[in-house]
Amino acid sequence: MPSDTATNGETIGKSQNDAHKILTHPIGLPVAHQETCKVPAPLGGEGTVVPDFAGRVGSPLPLALGYNKHCTVHKSGIAMKSYREIISVHIPQRMDFVNITPQVAAAVKKSGVKEGLVLVNSMHITSSVFINDDESGLHQDYKKWLEYLAPFNASPQVYAHNRTGEDNGDAHHKRQIMGREVVVAITEGKLDFGTWEQIFYGEFDGRRAKRILIKIIGE
Amino acid sequence: MPSDTATNGETIGKSQNDAHKILTHPIGLPVAHQETCKVPAPLGGEGTVVPDFAGRVGSPLPLALGYNKHCTVHKSGIAMKSYREIISVHIPQRMDFVNITPQVAAAVKKSGVKEGLVLVNSMHITSSVFINDDESGLHQDYKKWLEYLAPFNASPQVYAHNRTGEDNGDAHHKRQIMGREVVVAITEGKLDFGTWEQIFYGEFDGRRAKRILIKIIGE
Amino acid sequence: MPSDTATNGETIGKSQNDAHKILTHPIGLPVAHQETCKVPAPLGGEGTVVPDFAGRVGSPLPLALGYNKHCTVHKSGIAMKSYREIISVHIPQRMDFVNITPQVAAAVKKSGVKEGLVLVNSMHITSSVFINDDESGLHQDYKKWLEYLAPFNASPQVYAHNRTGEDNGDAHHKRQIMGREVVVAITEGKLDFGTWEQIFYGEFDGRRAKRILIKIIGE
Repeated sequence: MPSDTATNGETIGKSQNDAHKILTHPIGLPVAHQETCKVPAPLGGEGTVVPDFAGRVGSPLPLALGYNKHCTVHKSGIAMKSYREIISVHIPQRMDFVNITPQVAAAVKKSGVKEGLVLVNSMHITSSVFINDDESGLHQDYKKWLEYLAPFNASPQVYAHNRTGEDNGDAHHKRQIMGREVVVAITEGKLDFGTWEQIFYGEFDGRRAKRILIKIIGE
Repeated sequence: MPSDTATNGETIGKSQNDAHKILTHPIGLPVAHQETCKVPAPLGGEGTVVPDFAGRVGSPLPLALGYNKHCTVHKSGIAMKSYREIISVHIPQRMDFVNITPQVAAAVKKSGVKEGLVLVNSMHITSSVFINDDESGLHQDYKKWLEYLAPFNASPQVYAHNRTGEDNGDAHHKRQIMGREVVVAITEGKLDFGTWEQIFYGEFDGRRAKRILIKIIGE
Repeated sequence: MPSDTATNGETIGKSQNDAHKILTHPIGLPVAHQETCKVPAPLGGEGTVVPDFAGRVGSPLPLALGYNKHCTVHKSGIAMKSYREIISVHIPQRMDFVNITPQVAAAVKKSGVKEGLVLVNSMHITSSVFINDDESGLHQDYKKWLEYLAPFNASPQVYAHNRTGEDNGDAHHKRQIMGREVVVAITEGKLDFGTWEQIFYGEFDGRRAKRILIKIIGE
């Protein structure tokens, strides 16, 4: 297991770029290739349903949906890269949400990965990583709702888990509602997000140090 | 960020296959190699628990479970590929579910990826992508249940989020229950699914254009 | 689709290692390269906020969080590998949880993947794979809570899904709370877990054979 210890104080040196060169040039791999591919025009004209899907089971998209799409194939001669980073947080409240999108975006940049996936997960079982809106009213709503669905109660009569001497039985339940992890696409070196998507760390048993794992794979 | 604009009207040409050839042949990588590997026979005879797991923590599977398994290792000389596609939908109702499995299966086929992972996620924060049964009674149940867990109410007194002028506070909650994304294995060029698994887009604040991202990485 | 049949009785032979050699040596790829990278020291001294994130949107981490981090870049000259394994289980109860961490850890070891991602998902739509604590009191709490949120009731008046002749409408709901899948980082050849993270199969309609898919990609 990699060390839990988070360390500060050193910069990412020139050597990272050099390693990249070592990897991509001497072995004569071809230059990365990208092309834009577009789906065939629908039989009934543009802008509606694409009829020729090689789907296996299930109903087609209703015509009323105005279905259309856009795609890109990217093929690289570069072998896979991976990147790992731990973020340590210490939330002063029992329950709170923190936007960690800037940290994840920075990790993606540092990784040098242009096309791939980033996994972001809590390394704890009483907190979540999830994607939603950075709007304080919504976060207030979430707290009220989670407290309604799984109220805090230290009693071992309410949560058998609290027989262990802990008082965080509720936090293990709140975390299941909000989820452990998110997987986000990396496209052209950036988080491939819709307009309002933001990544949050959701703490349900705070007031102590916790860790978030960022793992990136791609090319 | 890639463009949001979805475009129709062009086919995926011959050039895609050519690009594949450019990638795999000139650099002399070995042909993809696949082998079937099977777990050792359990000490107590076939069909029960496999005793030699190098697990780190946790209880072994109960003998009563009739545990067994089958595995395949695939090693390719081909470098990683990635593929991206956006599906645009416009659901006429506030809440509804649409089976998008055919679209995802078609994207997997177009990507040319034989072994890998496909991420499918809503690019919005008031809708979900999830995997369950394509059964209309179940979808009716889900709607009733989600309305019970997080009822629609436009009032900012009920959802503080609605102070923003929006009325979709409930949709942000429903989406957390059903999830943002799914990650599905690609095996032998196809979605590696159980018998009844189907991918759905779950809309909780419809009547406007939304987008779904498909991102594929693999070989 | 790969076969559903799980098979026992054979070992993973010497050929797996040989395949690895065939892949990595003859084509003269450079030796895998790893380096430890550390974030720049924060302006205000060590141990607090890192100020230079190239984040795109969203609020910075509060200073009070004592934010810091540690990262590793890994670049390999080895092409991508993938691995697939099916675990079959038969849970004697309608609802129960089984720790499958040892099985997943063994699959990671067998795959030979050092840096990558492992997807673990139920291949059924009435069961879950999730990560939480291996504590019997908590599992008792989860069962009570899930029964409260989506009670078992065979009546088609309660769950329209049961009109199909099935009685498992509740199980489809419980599964959505607990999730279908987990994606876990693989680092230095092992599950990259926090102290208490354990992977569970959550059954909500047991007493029959079910399958769990493990898919690994990486290098």
